[in-house]
Amino acid sequence: METVKSHVVHGGTLRYLKHDSATTGTPMTLSVFVPAGEGPFPVLIWLSGLTCTEDNFTTKAGAYKAAAEHGVIIVAPDTSPRGEGVADDAAYDLGQGAGFYVDATQAPWAPHFRMESYVTGELIELIDAQFPTTKTRSIFGHSMGGHGALTLALRHPELFKSVSAFAPISSPTRCPWGEKAFTAYLGEDRTQWAKHDAALLIEGGAAQDADGNRVFDDILVDQGDADTFLTDQLKPDLLTAAAQKAGQGLTLRMQPGYDHSYFFMASFVDDHVAFHAKRLKA
Amino acid sequence: METVKSHVVHGGTLRYLKHDSATTGTPMTLSVFVPAGEGPFPVLIWLSGLTCTEDNFTTKAGAYKAAAEHGVIIVAPDTSPRGEGVADDAAYDLGQGAGFYVDATQAPWAPHFRMESYVTGELIELIDAQFPTTKTRSIFGHSMGGHGALTLALRHPELFKSVSAFAPISSPTRCPWGEKAFTAYLGEDRTQWAKHDAALLIEGGAAQDADGNRVFDDILVDQGDADTFLTDQLKPDLLTAAAQKAGQGLTLRMQPGYDHSYFFMASFVDDHVAFHAKRLKA
Repeated sequence: METVKSHVVHGGTLRYLKHDSATTGTPMTLSVFVPAGEGPFPVLIWLSGLTCTEDNFTTKAGAYKAAAEHGVIIVAPDTSPRGEGVADDAAYDLGQGAGFYVDATQAPWAPHFRMESYVTGELIELIDAQFPTTKTRSIFGHSMGGHGALTLALRHPELFKSVSAFAPISSPTRCPWGEKAFTAYLGEDRTQWAKHDAALLIEGGAAQDADGNRVFDDILVDQGDADTFLTDQLKPDLLTAAAQKAGQGLTLRMQPGYDHSYFFMASFVDDHVAFHAKRLKA
Repeated sequence: METVKSHVVHGGTLRYLKHDSATTGTPMTLSVFVPAGEGPFPVLIWLSGLTCTEDNFTTKAGAYKAAAEHGVIIVAPDTSPRGEGVADDAAYDLGQGAGFYVDATQAPWAPHFRMESYVTGELIELIDAQFPTTKTRSIFGHSMGGHGALTLALRHPELFKSVSAFAPISSPTRCPWGEKAFTAYLGEDRTQWAKHDAALLIEGGAAQDADGNRVFDDILVDQGDADTFLTDQLKPDLLTAAAQKAGQGLTLRMQPGYDHSYFFMASFVDDHVAFHAKRLKA
């Protein structure tokens, strides 16, 4: 991995990195914060929302003070492959900047849009190989990245100690953003979609082990009640209903007055880092 | 003032505002964070550096958690007048985005570039008129804005309870950024420049009242030792020497490894807010 730039922040080191990804077949960018000291440190992966690169979270979330205090590495990848040879769409909610954390099966997206494999495979391996990690990790994200965090944790529970989200797309099979992206990336067959829908995964028992026990004791979700995407796109009530049905622990906090911006995330990111640090160190 | 947008953050309200300034003869933009509750609250004014608008500090500094905790309003104005009828320069360090917190006396800058009068007059009056303030305030800033905070506090000590800075231009009469800007805005007469040079103002006793007592018990300055502008432009040693000569309290903290970015400011902004809150509430 090539270090594009590096900053000291809250006593630790923040690097913007770039590497050629074998998974996406493109260069991929990310940021990695490593606390001061020798470690090893557990890893917390952040997945961003539509239109974002790794930079939005890195500059705006204010997460590194808590990460330094708890001794946690934070990794924030870009939201999709990018570049001239990569398929794209003029809309903000499809193509570059809108990878939706799935492996696309449809043309023209399939060759490069493989964000599920990238995050759960190559990214984790690279981080564990190049930084002083405990080889344990958790995952969180915002909006499209909240969907990504929830679905990747539910589909790969062996990889993650805990999962949380800010304003996640709770059920992409039942909202315009998800319907559009899944049609493009996964095709018309809705049985394929259901495998990447957090509410449906929870309802189907994905958060339970072979003995029927919870894999994740609790899932923390913060949602602003002044979020303009709340009722049409995010629908956290579908997540609550699924969790109740499946007996999954879910702490959904409706935050009065908060919107969909990074000001909302900055207000509660300390709680999320603490939530994960507790479980990463248990 | 027109509210351009508004966000809830850390329980308070952050507004991006726009108003037609009688001082600059242009629209001016700013952000204002008001903590939850009725107030009244003391005010902390932030002045940004070269190329910045009000948005850099607002989104990147992470100051509002501390402001909410201490019950302090934070006001961040733009760094210059802007717009089509306003003089500009192709360089990043002159013209729009580079107002240097002086009232320009030279063509073509004099009609609009009146940032000293704007900040110390119209801005303060507007904030006190439109928000629940205690009508007391302090000031801090970064780089060009650190110069602005120091010089405006030293030139108008009756307006401010305290002053601090991150990586300030300590002596603009003795660095390329300052020499260029002061030549353009104030002309060739260096006696005019000296009135806007923090180190020279301190040396000349500007921080003392008529009885020779300190107006500001202490001035807090943080400076990263990996800041690429440290030796050529910022020169905090000139500030230290002036403070020693004049018997001015100055706490200059050289922060190892830190650079000139907002990651540096985010790492220490809580200390600055606490420094001012203590003095605003004394």
